[in-house]
Amino acid sequence: MTGPCFIFFFLLLNLLPFFQTLEASHCSIKGLPLVRNIADLPQDNYGRGGLSHITVAGSLLHGLKEVEVWLQTFAPGSRTPIHRHSCEEVFVVLKGSGTLYLASSSNKYPGKPEEHFIFSNSTFHIPVNDVHQVWNTNEHEDLQMLVIISRPPIKVFIYEDWLMPHTAAKLKFPYYWDEQCFQVPQKDEL
Amino acid sequence: MTGPCFIFFFLLLNLLPFFQTLEASHCSIKGLPLVRNIADLPQDNYGRGGLSHITVAGSLLHGLKEVEVWLQTFAPGSRTPIHRHSCEEVFVVLKGSGTLYLASSSNKYPGKPEEHFIFSNSTFHIPVNDVHQVWNTNEHEDLQMLVIISRPPIKVFIYEDWLMPHTAAKLKFPYYWDEQCFQVPQKDEL
Repeated sequence: MTGPCFIFFFLLLNLLPFFQTLEASHCSIKGLPLVRNIADLPQDNYGRGGLSHITVAGSLLHGLKEVEVWLQTFAPGSRTPIHRHSCEEVFVVLKGSGTLYLASSSNKYPGKPEEHFIFSNSTFHIPVNDVHQVWNTNEHEDLQMLVIISRPPIKVFIYEDWLMPHTAAKLKFPYYWDEQCFQVPQKDEL
Repeated sequence: MTGPCFIFFFLLLNLLPFFQTLEASHCSIKGLPLVRNIADLPQDNYGRGGLSHITVAGSLLHGLKEVEVWLQTFAPGSRTPIHRHSCEEVFVVLKGSGTLYLASSSNKYPGKPEEHFIFSNSTFHIPVNDVHQVWNTNEHEDLQMLVIISRPPIKVFIYEDWLMPHTAAKLKFPYYWDEQCFQVPQKDEL
């Protein structure tokens, strides 16, 4: 290893704890102001094209135990996976329009979903365990929604299509935006 | 009773079941569309000057069990009572500004509260059981917020002032907007 390269590598090693602290503090409620500007909160697409997700108030980020609030924006054409969860979920559409696809959980697989038009200043909630997908089917405008769930962090079962049996849907936990701050609960050693 | 007056009275009596059905349906989820325009939802001040309250998604109106969402607008100078509750509560400020007064529940009485400036596009949540009051202290603009609570319908303890002991705070249940549709749970007869 040449001299300058070694020095750079050495510096990088020494900076590592600093970066680790930064990441840790993003996942801690310590030092967060009580009143937070939503524009200052972490925003990311978490690897999903066309999505902007902000956890406005959450379990892992802010210590809530019973509710969680997200601000989500879907670019034209973008959508959630086909999925279900056993928590309650309420949507408030702030901007744009789109389509909610909804199928019941009473058969072996979801089957052809109902289609519901969703629009600015509308609200809807998802019956517990019903399979659903929200899609920005408006080619010209972003779809922005406040999303409220109970019992965070969310546990989501994802379907490849509407004909996949409920038993084959795949659990994604922690979910996309919870991955970074999720810590496996420590079990008591008995 | 004169003839026309009698006929009018008779007609009114016959219309009574119709009005009762209307009121009953306002408290029932039957027939409600899945996607609802918030502008079409019942809005009232529930006897509190300067308040506009809409239950966007709720326990008594829409059958939710774990979360409830309100849209509340406070005219300049109007405010919530000083109160506490054991559920979680998240605020998202949509318009205007104001002051959150917040005192802990760790002493015998709340005492002088902390003052926090709240503003459009800000969010905050109330630590469980902390005594608080939200006040539109902006003389020029309405304060509009989405309010999310867990474990609906809400059970609120109200304080006359910040020096009232926690034990003297008075339970208001059902709360203002839940009174009309609240039904006392039927007990099993053993």
